[in-house]
Amino acid sequence: MKKAAVIGAGSWGTALAMVLADNGHEVKLLSRTEKHADTINKTHKNTRYLSGVSLPESIKAFSSMEEAVSGADFIVLVVPTKAMREVLPKLKPFISENAVLVHASKGIEPESHMRISEIIAEELDNRAVVCLSGPSHAEEVCKRQPTTVTCSSLHMDLAEEVQDLFMNQSFRVYTNPDLIGVELGGALKNIIAIGSGMTSGLGFGDNARAALMTRGLAEISRLGVKLGANPLTFSGLSGLGDLIVTCTSFHSRNWRAGNMIGKGMSVSQTENEMGMVVEGVRTTKAAYQLSEKYHIDMPITRELYAVLFEDKDVEEAVEALMGRVKKKEVEELMRGQTSSMGKDPLDHFEP
Amino acid sequence: MKKAAVIGAGSWGTALAMVLADNGHEVKLLSRTEKHADTINKTHKNTRYLSGVSLPESIKAFSSMEEAVSGADFIVLVVPTKAMREVLPKLKPFISENAVLVHASKGIEPESHMRISEIIAEELDNRAVVCLSGPSHAEEVCKRQPTTVTCSSLHMDLAEEVQDLFMNQSFRVYTNPDLIGVELGGALKNIIAIGSGMTSGLGFGDNARAALMTRGLAEISRLGVKLGANPLTFSGLSGLGDLIVTCTSFHSRNWRAGNMIGKGMSVSQTENEMGMVVEGVRTTKAAYQLSEKYHIDMPITRELYAVLFEDKDVEEAVEALMGRVKKKEVEELMRGQTSSMGKDPLDHFEP
Repeated sequence: MKKAAVIGAGSWGTALAMVLADNGHEVKLLSRTEKHADTINKTHKNTRYLSGVSLPESIKAFSSMEEAVSGADFIVLVVPTKAMREVLPKLKPFISENAVLVHASKGIEPESHMRISEIIAEELDNRAVVCLSGPSHAEEVCKRQPTTVTCSSLHMDLAEEVQDLFMNQSFRVYTNPDLIGVELGGALKNIIAIGSGMTSGLGFGDNARAALMTRGLAEISRLGVKLGANPLTFSGLSGLGDLIVTCTSFHSRNWRAGNMIGKGMSVSQTENEMGMVVEGVRTTKAAYQLSEKYHIDMPITRELYAVLFEDKDVEEAVEALMGRVKKKEVEELMRGQTSSMGKDPLDHFEP
Repeated sequence: MKKAAVIGAGSWGTALAMVLADNGHEVKLLSRTEKHADTINKTHKNTRYLSGVSLPESIKAFSSMEEAVSGADFIVLVVPTKAMREVLPKLKPFISENAVLVHASKGIEPESHMRISEIIAEELDNRAVVCLSGPSHAEEVCKRQPTTVTCSSLHMDLAEEVQDLFMNQSFRVYTNPDLIGVELGGALKNIIAIGSGMTSGLGFGDNARAALMTRGLAEISRLGVKLGANPLTFSGLSGLGDLIVTCTSFHSRNWRAGNMIGKGMSVSQTENEMGMVVEGVRTTKAAYQLSEKYHIDMPITRELYAVLFEDKDVEEAVEALMGRVKKKEVEELMRGQTSSMGKDPLDHFEP
């Protein structure tokens, strides 16, 4: 039995706390407010984020960072990218020297273009961290439905410890040494999810969605490879797998935001309506900036950026994507990859 | 304006006839029965396969092969794999010397393990053929909703002619010189679609489906690469794109068959209920045989084969897939690819 602290009592943090409690660990769940923590402890429910789910009584909720984090063997960060810079310095004094840090957040910081593990390293004196990512709706994890995720880290011994911590019969954990690819896949797929929601909002069908997802995965892979990722990672659970779950389900916030925009709502109306920041909107900005910086052809990202930040009409954007001149498919999939892959991409794949 | 004959008046054949008619070509559609052809000509509807769709009056239906095919510049074959051996010799006397052959069928012949273009070459004195494949529900094509497909051939000049023939604002056609990959992707994805239907039939959710699709694409790519395909093709429209459309939509026959089996129906009950042969069942057999022959690790195909042909319990099969020992993801994605990729896979990608 290990002591684990989960930072963030949203749907995903709560679901991960459940997996850990199922595995017999002592779990402390940190909520932002005392009231929310109290409600969880009294009702053993997190109605705000996961209606209908009964939490194991062994999960204790806290609103004090010190109480939640002190003495924890594992600290699992599940907070929005935007909140990382604020939360980490406050947590820092309570993190014990031997604690293993895990994060399950998906984003890229605009302007700095840092991945979550880089933000954590910067804020916490270069501490090692394990990223957990993959196709995983919280609602299904809470029902113990079969789910697979990937763990990655620059320190694979830690990734394997985290694998052991979470692994059970319905929650299968794989490892992948490509931290860059695992983090980027989880973040960048939200761009394509917004696009997928837009096409549905415009009334297009499954054929258009499949085309967008296929070409979307190709373009985020191109960017990922340029940033040092293994292209194979984008074909794995944290890339393709997560893309599928996010683009084909109403559960996804990013998909729903895109859907509202496709139906004619403005971006600010959409964010107001949803009552939260949509991670993929910020990620679109970061990815667009990166594509410009490194000269990577990312037509979907570019059109989405124009819709989200330059008031481009959403129908015009989708027409621009569909009406492109006829192309050779393989050339298009390869574009921008050649130079980064080097002579033997297999060299690049091994840990 | 070109003269085109479409062989097979099912939903996909009819949809392709509509695209050609929209592009101003003269289109003859061959049905198996005089009655069906007459109904199409009188009502300009194909109610049996595409209810609610009005066909352009320029599409003429026939039941005589000679009338449909004689003088056609393009002959588009849209018949089940199983019917190819029967149909081709009958068509042969009426195919003019300069006609361009196209096929839009998706299967592998059991025992011989031939792709459709190989069957056509064998039956028609090594004639060249263009394969058209991609994520394309017929229903959506008939509504002129945005759709993308890929054309491939050993003779890329012909593939480009076919690209020009079909291309329009809503039906976008790409080319890819990897005929093996394009044909195998379209055929093998039906195996994963059956598996995807099974997991839904068993009550599993989006997380399990995404995992199955991700690992499914990896294993059919491994087989494809062994058979000479370019691995990138499996990440394209005719691979990943078609996989997405088929695994996430109730439109797909293969998905529906898997779903019934997942709910506890026997394989023969399912085929009776559907009133037609399910292409993916035969493809699973062919792929299983190929995986044994070439020692390719295909766990999903193997479990599906056991369910479809060896009466294995479907729940046990899915448990076997989910309960595998913990693995390193990248190793698993790579397994079996290394030897076939050679020193520089880029050599392999160029036409």
